[in-house]
Amino acid sequence: MHAITIPEAGGPEALVWAEVPDPVPGEGEVLVEVTAAAVNRADLLQRQGFYDPPPGASPHPGLECSGRIADIGPGVSGWSVGDEVCALLSGGGYAEKVAVPAGQLLPVPAGLSLVEAAALPEVTCTVWSNVFMVAHLRPGETLLVHGGSSGIGTMAIQLAKAVGAKVAVTAGSEEKLDRCAQLGADILINYREQDFVEEIAKATDGAGADVILDNMGAKYLDRNVKALAVNGRLAIIGMQGGVRGELDIATLLNKRAAVSATSLRARPLDEKAAIVAAVREHVWPLVADGHVRPVIDRKLPMEAAGEGHRVLEASGHVGKVLLVAPGA
Amino acid sequence: MHAITIPEAGGPEALVWAEVPDPVPGEGEVLVEVTAAAVNRADLLQRQGFYDPPPGASPHPGLECSGRIADIGPGVSGWSVGDEVCALLSGGGYAEKVAVPAGQLLPVPAGLSLVEAAALPEVTCTVWSNVFMVAHLRPGETLLVHGGSSGIGTMAIQLAKAVGAKVAVTAGSEEKLDRCAQLGADILINYREQDFVEEIAKATDGAGADVILDNMGAKYLDRNVKALAVNGRLAIIGMQGGVRGELDIATLLNKRAAVSATSLRARPLDEKAAIVAAVREHVWPLVADGHVRPVIDRKLPMEAAGEGHRVLEASGHVGKVLLVAPGA
Repeated sequence: MHAITIPEAGGPEALVWAEVPDPVPGEGEVLVEVTAAAVNRADLLQRQGFYDPPPGASPHPGLECSGRIADIGPGVSGWSVGDEVCALLSGGGYAEKVAVPAGQLLPVPAGLSLVEAAALPEVTCTVWSNVFMVAHLRPGETLLVHGGSSGIGTMAIQLAKAVGAKVAVTAGSEEKLDRCAQLGADILINYREQDFVEEIAKATDGAGADVILDNMGAKYLDRNVKALAVNGRLAIIGMQGGVRGELDIATLLNKRAAVSATSLRARPLDEKAAIVAAVREHVWPLVADGHVRPVIDRKLPMEAAGEGHRVLEASGHVGKVLLVAPGA
Repeated sequence: MHAITIPEAGGPEALVWAEVPDPVPGEGEVLVEVTAAAVNRADLLQRQGFYDPPPGASPHPGLECSGRIADIGPGVSGWSVGDEVCALLSGGGYAEKVAVPAGQLLPVPAGLSLVEAAALPEVTCTVWSNVFMVAHLRPGETLLVHGGSSGIGTMAIQLAKAVGAKVAVTAGSEEKLDRCAQLGADILINYREQDFVEEIAKATDGAGADVILDNMGAKYLDRNVKALAVNGRLAIIGMQGGVRGELDIATLLNKRAAVSATSLRARPLDEKAAIVAAVREHVWPLVADGHVRPVIDRKLPMEAAGEGHRVLEASGHVGKVLLVAPGA
């Protein structure tokens, strides 16, 4: 088969579409013939040599895909050859075929094309596991989403609105904020022109955000703690603004607040399977009934994966960038 | 009645036993005739002028007491005049009488004297709410308790052992560590001579502590994050080592770990009542059957409260320092 390979770490041009050996599904795995994959920020880090795949994972990039089951390994039940699926991967999505643990498979929700389904696994699993399973966002609470127009952001807005929360977002342009508003965001903050701590305080009568979903890490840590409400929960899922930051423990303690940080890729199989099962139970019905839709910025040929990386690096996109496999 | 007053902030001599007006139980409150109170570190800060009582609280120090119900305000059911109780207070325990919201009352557990019961409310509510309600310590997990010989520490060791966890403690002398071992601690770390990060790693085959109960704040933040296991939870309840510290977000994220910080005193009544109810349900049976006992360092006359403060400031004590009311 063909896959995107990284012969040498570097810029987007480092991604090379090349002939590689077919993956073989092991115990508990299925082989998926890939229809589409999606680009995640972690793929950019992997391309630059900063984020090696975890032990046992495919060396090729790609943390999610959609496609058809082409073969079934030993010990798998409940899935058949030909099933249309999407999947959370620990790597290898930028390829014609990928082997996937069965616990990371999801059916394609009603009303979505097989290509569109590739936009769902990472964002639904990341948002559900952080905002709901860790931070327990409740109806009537306020969620602040940094990067509201990103793939993660567009899903977080929709899921939080679907459960009856109020949603605030930050983004870097009026166009992006408009898109967030169309998805249901109630409080729009242009981080280039406004201070999000002040804006959140104004919009909540001084109460603050009950939950914050953050991709900036160190750069926002102090302001995020300031923006939290009493009993607030800060969920960090990215460190685009640095890895070490000063924590104001006194403010955290006075607010009885908490800071968590997680990533999906390195989790053991049973934790991933538990998240995927929760997403199937809680999120899939919302997609099937149209309350929640994947937001897709553009679709590119998988061979042009480097172009997809350039789009994320330029940060002009809204939602997910998909890579469509040849012939799909 | 008489109470310990603080005419002017200062050292232990600033505490003055003086005639003050009797408290009057309001809606939902009872009046307790105090038998004993206990000294908490927050009382020392209040005496120094660094920790004002929350709005509506008694101006006198004292966050817990035991005694007999002397009067019942409007809207209280389930309690009678003469009942022997202990109580979580937002202030006013260093006094002959104190008004208490009924949701913060606990019966005196079987097998304990009324004086001894004063040692229980703060430590049981703090440990249960942090280690179990927030950090969800589970059987088989490892809890690291800083200050293992403190009132909080001695209760944390016993409760964690009672639910089947492994317990590591830090303390500053072999004598204190011996007392922790007698209470069931499995891993003893002398913080003056050993590095707790290294010792925890050694004792857990490199896995780290699943839950850490911390009273040091900034000074230990970085090392606590290093000492956490994957999926670990750091619960900060004190800031004896400073209020701002550098947080290693990358390590937190790689471990999918969380940092929480709480205090009891400023919580609204409903949250305090929920904690007290959980303590009565989960901890009181363990006290009644002898699995968990209050550890009492010494009993002093309440008029000599300043002496109790000196004991905590010298840090030579093990367990709780009680103040016994005149005539009790």
